Amino acid sequence: MSFKINMNGNIAKRIEHYFDRLWPITRSITGDGIRRSMDILAEVVPTERMRFKTGQKVFDWQVPKEWVIREAYFIAPDGTRHCDIQKNNLHLMGYSIPFNGKVDFSELKEHLYSLPDKPDAIPYVTSYYKPAWGFCLSHNEFKTLPDGEYEVHIDTELIDGQLEIGEAVLPGSSKKEILFSSYLCHPSLANNELSGPLVMAFLYELVNNIPDRRFTYRFLFSAESIGTICYLSKRARQLKKNLAAGYVMTCLGDAGSFTYKESRRGDSLADLAARVVLRDRGYFKNVPFFPRGSDEKQYCSAQLNLPVGSLMRTMYDEYPEYHTSLDNKDFISFEAMAESVKVYFNVVRVLENNYIWDNTVECCVPMLGKRGLFSSVSNASNALNMQEQEEFTDAILWFINLADGQNDLISMAIRSGLKIEKLLEVSRLCEQAGVVKRIDK
Amino acid sequence: MSFKINMNGNIAKRIEHYFDRLWPITRSITGDGIRRSMDILAEVVPTERMRFKTGQKVFDWQVPKEWVIREAYFIAPDGTRHCDIQKNNLHLMGYSIPFNGKVDFSELKEHLYSLPDKPDAIPYVTSYYKPAWGFCLSHNEFKTLPDGEYEVHIDTELIDGQLEIGEAVLPGSSKKEILFSSYLCHPSLANNELSGPLVMAFLYELVNNIPDRRFTYRFLFSAESIGTICYLSKRARQLKKNLAAGYVMTCLGDAGSFTYKESRRGDSLADLAARVVLRDRGYFKNVPFFPRGSDEKQYCSAQLNLPVGSLMRTMYDEYPEYHTSLDNKDFISFEAMAESVKVYFNVVRVLENNYIWDNTVECCVPMLGKRGLFSSVSNASNALNMQEQEEFTDAILWFINLADGQNDLISMAIRSGLKIEKLLEVSRLCEQAGVVKRIDK
Amino acid sequence: MSFKINMNGNIAKRIEHYFDRLWPITRSITGDGIRRSMDILAEVVPTERMRFKTGQKVFDWQVPKEWVIREAYFIAPDGTRHCDIQKNNLHLMGYSIPFNGKVDFSELKEHLYSLPDKPDAIPYVTSYYKPAWGFCLSHNEFKTLPDGEYEVHIDTELIDGQLEIGEAVLPGSSKKEILFSSYLCHPSLANNELSGPLVMAFLYELVNNIPDRRFTYRFLFSAESIGTICYLSKRARQLKKNLAAGYVMTCLGDAGSFTYKESRRGDSLADLAARVVLRDRGYFKNVPFFPRGSDEKQYCSAQLNLPVGSLMRTMYDEYPEYHTSLDNKDFISFEAMAESVKVYFNVVRVLENNYIWDNTVECCVPMLGKRGLFSSVSNASNALNMQEQEEFTDAILWFINLADGQNDLISMAIRSGLKIEKLLEVSRLCEQAGVVKRIDK
Repeated sequence: MSFKINMNGNIAKRIEHYFDRLWPITRSITGDGIRRSMDILAEVVPTERMRFKTGQKVFDWQVPKEWVIREAYFIAPDGTRHCDIQKNNLHLMGYSIPFNGKVDFSELKEHLYSLPDKPDAIPYVTSYYKPAWGFCLSHNEFKTLPDGEYEVHIDTELIDGQLEIGEAVLPGSSKKEILFSSYLCHPSLANNELSGPLVMAFLYELVNNIPDRRFTYRFLFSAESIGTICYLSKRARQLKKNLAAGYVMTCLGDAGSFTYKESRRGDSLADLAARVVLRDRGYFKNVPFFPRGSDEKQYCSAQLNLPVGSLMRTMYDEYPEYHTSLDNKDFISFEAMAESVKVYFNVVRVLENNYIWDNTVECCVPMLGKRGLFSSVSNASNALNMQEQEEFTDAILWFINLADGQNDLISMAIRSGLKIEKLLEVSRLCEQAGVVKRIDK
Repeated sequence: MSFKINMNGNIAKRIEHYFDRLWPITRSITGDGIRRSMDILAEVVPTERMRFKTGQKVFDWQVPKEWVIREAYFIAPDGTRHCDIQKNNLHLMGYSIPFNGKVDFSELKEHLYSLPDKPDAIPYVTSYYKPAWGFCLSHNEFKTLPDGEYEVHIDTELIDGQLEIGEAVLPGSSKKEILFSSYLCHPSLANNELSGPLVMAFLYELVNNIPDRRFTYRFLFSAESIGTICYLSKRARQLKKNLAAGYVMTCLGDAGSFTYKESRRGDSLADLAARVVLRDRGYFKNVPFFPRGSDEKQYCSAQLNLPVGSLMRTMYDEYPEYHTSLDNKDFISFEAMAESVKVYFNVVRVLENNYIWDNTVECCVPMLGKRGLFSSVSNASNALNMQEQEEFTDAILWFINLADGQNDLISMAIRSGLKIEKLLEVSRLCEQAGVVKRIDK
Repeated sequence: MSFKINMNGNIAKRIEHYFDRLWPITRSITGDGIRRSMDILAEVVPTERMRFKTGQKVFDWQVPKEWVIREAYFIAPDGTRHCDIQKNNLHLMGYSIPFNGKVDFSELKEHLYSLPDKPDAIPYVTSYYKPAWGFCLSHNEFKTLPDGEYEVHIDTELIDGQLEIGEAVLPGSSKKEILFSSYLCHPSLANNELSGPLVMAFLYELVNNIPDRRFTYRFLFSAESIGTICYLSKRARQLKKNLAAGYVMTCLGDAGSFTYKESRRGDSLADLAARVVLRDRGYFKNVPFFPRGSDEKQYCSAQLNLPVGSLMRTMYDEYPEYHTSLDNKDFISFEAMAESVKVYFNVVRVLENNYIWDNTVECCVPMLGKRGLFSSVSNASNALNMQEQEEFTDAILWFINLADGQNDLISMAIRSGLKIEKLLEVSRLCEQAGVVKRIDK
C-alpha cells in the first residue's frame, strides 16, 4: 500500500535527452515520423504497436492514407528560397499533397498561412481530410515576399499504408483499469506535442516500480482524434466495463500552474483524485468539461461518457505560443516536466490507496492514549510542538470518525479538509494500532 | 419542428386598437363589463364561455351575486359633484352595494379611500365578499372636501346571475397541455389588467399558426381568484394529469425588464423553459415562488402544485402605479407589449422543440469534416469569420456531445451555456447530416 | 400542542444559588466531588445514578480508579506555601498520584504547568490515564519561585471504586427520544463546567411542565468522554433506534452570541431544529461537525452517527479564558444562562410542535375572508397596521400553501423564511378555522 517516488536518476535531465532526440522528427498522424518517435520512446516504455490499414472503417471515420514527406520549399522571383522544411518542419502544411510548378504570387498567397498578430511565429496548420497544399511562415517573412512568379516544390506522397499507435500495459491485481492517453502527431512542437508523451513515459517507469499494484494501467501513444478513435474501436467495450479513471496527458511542459479539465461526468473517480492531489499542492485552475480540446472529447463522447479528465499545466488555447513555432524548447522547462511526472504519480498513489476504512472498535472513539496515538497530558502548555501535535490529533480523530465502512480516502480528504498525505500517515498508524481495518472494494 | 414568428401586420398597433376599445369598460369579477370585454377579444381569440351560477359551490368558495352598476357619485355641500364613475370607473369601490341618502362628512369619510403618499392617484379598492359601499379618490381631491352634509348616489344592484370565463383551446398531436392564464376583472387599469389578456390574445394568434403543434394549448380569460377557482372546479383533474407547463400572464405592458416568478416546484418544465428564454435574451429578474400575487397561488396551491409560473415585466407591487389610476395608457408601451408577445412565443418555441436527441454513430465524435460541419483546415488564420466559425464548431460539438438519449434541448442549453437558437440551428444541421436522431418522449 | 415558558421564579437568581454551592467542589471524572455535585443538582433534577466499577471494560476503554483528594501544596525554600488546593482546586493536576518528598527546583519544574502568554491564569491540566503528579499555577507566580529544595505534599489516593453518572427521564407519548447531555468532571470552572449542567437542570424543570409531551426526554449528567462512553455501553442500542435529536450542552454561560455545532450528519432533526430557533433569534454562528470538542465526538462516532449536535454560546477554544482559572464567576452571566435555558426550551417547543400539516379543502386556496383570516377590503389604505396585516396574510398564505401533507413546521419555516412563532400562531388559527389538519407522524 505504501510506496515512495523512486526516480531513476535525474528525471529532468533524462526527459531533456529524449526531447532533443524527438524534437527534429517530422511527425503527423501517420507516417515514418511516428514510427521513429515511438521507437525512441520504447527505450523507456516498451509499447505494443496497433496498426490500422488505410481505408479501414473505424466508427464514423476512415483511416487516411499515409503521408510521405521528402522535400518542400518555394523559390521567390529574386531567387531566395522560403519555407524549406529542412529549416522548420512547420513550414509545410500537414498532409500537403505534392505540387511542383510555377505560380504567380497572387495564387501562391491562397496557400500561405501566417499570423498578423504574432508576426514572429510560424503557425501550425494541417489539412488531413481535404486534399490541399500550403506553406506556413512568419508574418514578417510573408511581408518581404515580392510580387512575381514563384517556383513551388512539394515532394510528398499519399500512399496506402497504415496508422500506428502504441500501447503499454502494466497489470495489477484488480481488473479495474487506469488509462493514460497521450498523442504523437505534431511535428516540432514542444508543450503541445512532446510534453505529453515524455511525462507519460517517465510516469510509466514509476508505475512499473510499484510493488503489488492494485489497478491495471494502460499507457497510450496515439495520433490525436483519428488514432484514438482507432484505439477505441478495439478497446471501447473493455474500457466501458473496467475503466476506473483516465487522463489525457497534454500541455505538461510549461512552468505555469496546473489546470484540471473535468470529465463529462464531473464527479468521477478521475475527477476526485486529480482535484484532491492538486488541492493539496496549492493553487490550481479547475475547468468544467467542454467538448473541444484533445482526446477527452472522444472518451467523453455521448455514447461513452468515460471517466476521463485531463490534468495539464497551462491549457491549450490559453497561451499565445500554442500551435506556433514559439511552442519550442525555450517555452518549456524540464524541471516543470519532472514535476508534472510527480503530480501524475501522486494521482496514482491516491488511486492505489483509495481504500474504504472501517472501525474495529464496536462503539465510540477508541482509547488513543493507551496506543500512543494521543498525548495523555491535556493542555500540555510546555510542549514544544503544540500545534503540530494538535494537527496530528485532529487527523487521527477525523480519520477514525470517517472510518465508517463507507468513506474512502478521497472522500475523507474532501470532508475533513485534511491532506491525503496526512490521512495516509495516520491510516497506517491506526491500522498498526488495530483500531481500523481496510475494506477492499 | 421549425416555425417562424409570423406576425399579422403591426402587432403593437393592433394591440393599441383593442386596448382603446377595452379601456373604458367597467369590469369586475362578474357582470356586463366582462361579457362585453370578452366579446371584443373574441375577434382575436374565439373563446368558449363557461358560466357559473350565483350561489354555486366551488370547492371552499361560492359564486357571488352579479354586480350591476348604473350610476355613482356624491354631491358636496357646495353642490360640486365628486367621484362620478362617468369620469373614472375607479371612483366606485368594486362591488359597492346600492346607497342613496344624505350623510355627514364625518360619516362619508368612513367610505372614502385615498392614498396620502400618492396624492394624485385614485386607488383601486374592492369589497367582493363583505357588503359595503365606498368611493375612491385622489388625496388632493379628498383634501378639498368641506365639512357638511353630502348627498350620496350609488345606483348598483347585486342580482342572482352568473360568473363568466372564456377558454380557447388549440389542439396538438400530444395529450400534454400548455396553459396560459390571464384575468379580466379590473376596471380601467392598463398594466395590471389589459396587458395580460391582450398579450395572450396575440400569442393565441401566433400559436394558432404553428403547423403540426405538439402540445395542446389552453388560453384562459378569467376573473382573478374566484374565476380561476371556478375554472379549476372543471379542469383540475385534467390539468393534474396532462399539464406540462403553464403561465399566469399579467403585468406585461410596461417597458421594464422581464421578471420570472417560479412555480412552487421551482424546477418544472415551465420554469426551465421560461428561464432559458429570458437568459438568452439578457438580463431578467428571477423570483422564487411565494403564495401571494395572481392566480399562480391557485395553480400552485398545496393540493395541486401544478407546473405554473408567471413571466411578467415589472411585477405587481414593484411599481408605484400598481392598483391606482396611474396604471393607465401613459404608463404602458404597445411596443413593449408586442415584445412580450414575442417572448412568450419564444417560450412556446422552446417547449415545442424540447426534444431529446441521441447520436446515430456508434461511438466517438462523428466525422464532421466530410459532412461540411467542420472547417477541414485547422488554424485558418486568414479566415474571415474566425470567431463565428469557432462558435459554430463549439455549438456542433456541444450538441453532439450532449445528444446521449437523455438530454433535451433545454438541459443542453443549461449545460452548455449556448443559446437555444444556436442549438436549434445546429440540431437541424446535425439531423440533416444524419449524425443524430430525435427521440419523441 | 401549545405551551408557554412557565419559569418558576427568577431563573437567573436560582441558577446563581446553585452555582455558588457547586463552584467550590473539587470534581473530577470520578470521586466524591461528582457525588456531592449530583446530590445538589438532584434538588432540581432527580437523577437516577448509574455506577460503573473500576476496571470494568466499556468498549475500547476501562473504568479508571476512583480519585481521592485530601490535601496538596508545596513549600518553597523560603518557607512560602504554593499551589494549595484549599485556595484553588485547579492547582493540583487532575488525577495526580500521591507524592510526599523533597525535590530540587529543576525537578519540580518538570511537574509545573503555567501559561506564559496568559500570565495571570492558572491552567487546567489532567492526566487520567498516565500516572503522574503535577501542579498548575499562574506564570506570574511561577516566575517568583526561587531555586533550591522544595517540599511537595500531595495527599491523594487512587482506589478501586466507581464512576457515577446521573440520568433523568421524562416520558412522552411517543417512543422517539430527545437527549440532552452535559458533563460534570471539571473542578472550579464556570462556563466550561457548571453552565452545561445548570442550564440543563432548569431546562428539565420546563420540560417537566409540558402537558402531553410527545417525545421522551433524557437528561444526562456524565463525566466527559469516559462517562459518556459508559453511558453509551448501556444506551447505544436504544438511542440508535429511538433518538430523534440530541444536544451536548456546554459553554452556555458567557454573554457571547450563540453557536451551533452541527451533528456529523449535518441535516438531522437536531440540526434543523436548532438552526431554525437560532435563525429566528438573530445572529448566530454555524459550525460544521468536527471530531474534537465534547461528547458529540462519541455520539457522532463512525459507528453511531447519532443526530446529536451542540448548541452553545461561545465555543470552547474560542475564548481565551477556556480551561483556566479565568473561566470563573466573573466571566459568566446568570442572565445569559437563563437566556440559554430559554433558547433550549424553544428548541423543545419546535420539536414538540414539528407536525406535518395538510389541507382539508379539496382544491385551491380556501376562502379566508369568511373565516376572518383575511381582510375583505383590499388595498385598505386607511388601515392602521397595514404592514402587520400584510405579514399576517403572508403567513396564513404560506402556511396553507405548504400544508401539503409532506412539509413539517420546520421545513415550512425554512421554505417560507417565516419565523416558527408566526407559523405556530397561524397554524392554530387555521386549525381552528378548519382549513388544515395535523398529521401525526
